[in-house]
Amino acid sequence: VLGLTVVTADGRIIKTGGRARKSSAGYDLTRLFIGAEGTLGIITEIALRLYGVPEAIAAAVCQFDSLENAVNTVIVAMQTGIPVARIELLDDVQMDACIRYSKLEGFAVAPTLFFEFHGSAGAVDEQAAAMQAITAEFGGSAFQWATQAEDRTRLWKARHAAYYAALALKPGMTGFATDACVPISRLAQCIMETKADIAKSGLTAPILGHVGDGNFHLVILFDNTISGERARAEALATSVSLRAIAMGGTCTGEHGIGWHKLDVLVQEHGEAVDLMRSIKRALDPHNIMNPGKTVPLD
Amino acid sequence: VLGLTVVTADGRIIKTGGRARKSSAGYDLTRLFIGAEGTLGIITEIALRLYGVPEAIAAAVCQFDSLENAVNTVIVAMQTGIPVARIELLDDVQMDACIRYSKLEGFAVAPTLFFEFHGSAGAVDEQAAAMQAITAEFGGSAFQWATQAEDRTRLWKARHAAYYAALALKPGMTGFATDACVPISRLAQCIMETKADIAKSGLTAPILGHVGDGNFHLVILFDNTISGERARAEALATSVSLRAIAMGGTCTGEHGIGWHKLDVLVQEHGEAVDLMRSIKRALDPHNIMNPGKTVPLD
Repeated sequence: VLGLTVVTADGRIIKTGGRARKSSAGYDLTRLFIGAEGTLGIITEIALRLYGVPEAIAAAVCQFDSLENAVNTVIVAMQTGIPVARIELLDDVQMDACIRYSKLEGFAVAPTLFFEFHGSAGAVDEQAAAMQAITAEFGGSAFQWATQAEDRTRLWKARHAAYYAALALKPGMTGFATDACVPISRLAQCIMETKADIAKSGLTAPILGHVGDGNFHLVILFDNTISGERARAEALATSVSLRAIAMGGTCTGEHGIGWHKLDVLVQEHGEAVDLMRSIKRALDPHNIMNPGKTVPLD
Repeated sequence: VLGLTVVTADGRIIKTGGRARKSSAGYDLTRLFIGAEGTLGIITEIALRLYGVPEAIAAAVCQFDSLENAVNTVIVAMQTGIPVARIELLDDVQMDACIRYSKLEGFAVAPTLFFEFHGSAGAVDEQAAAMQAITAEFGGSAFQWATQAEDRTRLWKARHAAYYAALALKPGMTGFATDACVPISRLAQCIMETKADIAKSGLTAPILGHVGDGNFHLVILFDNTISGERARAEALATSVSLRAIAMGGTCTGEHGIGWHKLDVLVQEHGEAVDLMRSIKRALDPHNIMNPGKTVPLD
């Protein structure tokens, strides 16, 4: 994001940036408004930096015997510095849901990584070969390739429908998503402990994630008509947030705080929340911008 | 930058982020303190994300008949999306200064690009070949390669000494740097108009820049003992800032505002400066943090 047009609480229309790739002119208002969830002003225009379509794109799927092996593959790949454009993890439960919902054929109900490689044809081949060397070390299956645009679209469509696929596992139930993000080095421990928590909870909660960033989600499914089941789901979600924070990570990699995570925000940021509160009061003194969200005012 | 430890104006010690690669937990205090030039708090610790040393690194120098051809090479390279790790421009005056000061041999006094390519050995070859095809189109010389670490160090040392090399052009004179950054598409026009302004001013002002970002600097040399010469230098610097702003860019790509550019900050950001002022007053009500800098309070 290069810059924004924002309507402020006192009705002014301001621009936070120009079209230059970088700037150090004054405070970085662009980053302040991004992720403020509308609590500091209303974003009405966004100037984005565009990237060209890569010369070559290839997607591949690799399946594993264990979740731990799948995650350790990602850790080694990141630490080796292979420039993978996307790495998505789906655990066995999520893969099962996607196979059924999106009618994916030829895949096992097993922990799975979806990869996408971008670059010149030569660079894509090289990245893929480096990645295959790592997956082989962790007992990963042969890559199933999707080099044609329509095959890639089918795969990523299935990935994007993962939330609906998860809901379809238990028709009539409600689902909500968690959003932990941890340092890559802690990712395997974090996901394995989370998987054990899910088992203990007795709930169904598929795991999927943008694991190249150390970011993963559960979709926690629960039956709103059964007394206490929402509370169990909430407890599971809170344990995921607190574990991520304890590991030096965050309770939200990309979804934001909303009102649901106001408590864990304080756990994560401590006294820094006082500064956020000061900024909120300075820019929106009458609390008219998305009140009650993102930063607890009391 | 993943996170900071900051001492606030009221004496608290806060942490703005953890070790996760991304977070959307509350307002982005990390980006707010970065570039605030100490006016909102004192940064005492920085958590950085580290990158591995690339498998292969190669540096190359290419010289041009005209400044415009050198800059247009960069524009096409950026628009083509070649992932060059560094592209540095030195105009004829700066190149002359560097050749003399750093005793660079085998180079002409001519507009010059320094390139650095990072990646696997194959990727570096590929990037370099793609870049050579573009430089050839604009009449660039054959690449002079520096693949050995010591040759690269010699080149980049000369580049890093550019400011001192510029000062050495006119012993006893004072120099100050400008810092325009414009959209890549306007870079050639911006630099050529600036070069004409320098000629009109009668001052010596070599041009060098991180042109892959659209960012370039002049080192404007002037004689403080000659009446009116500082004013001429200031006028030239202001014209560079205002031209960058008029082209959708910024008066400072990386140096910051300090007290010298408080006026042009207002030209660039307009009413957004009121928001910066509100933030400054909220976080430092007694104006004890680097007072007078970055944001004009009146």
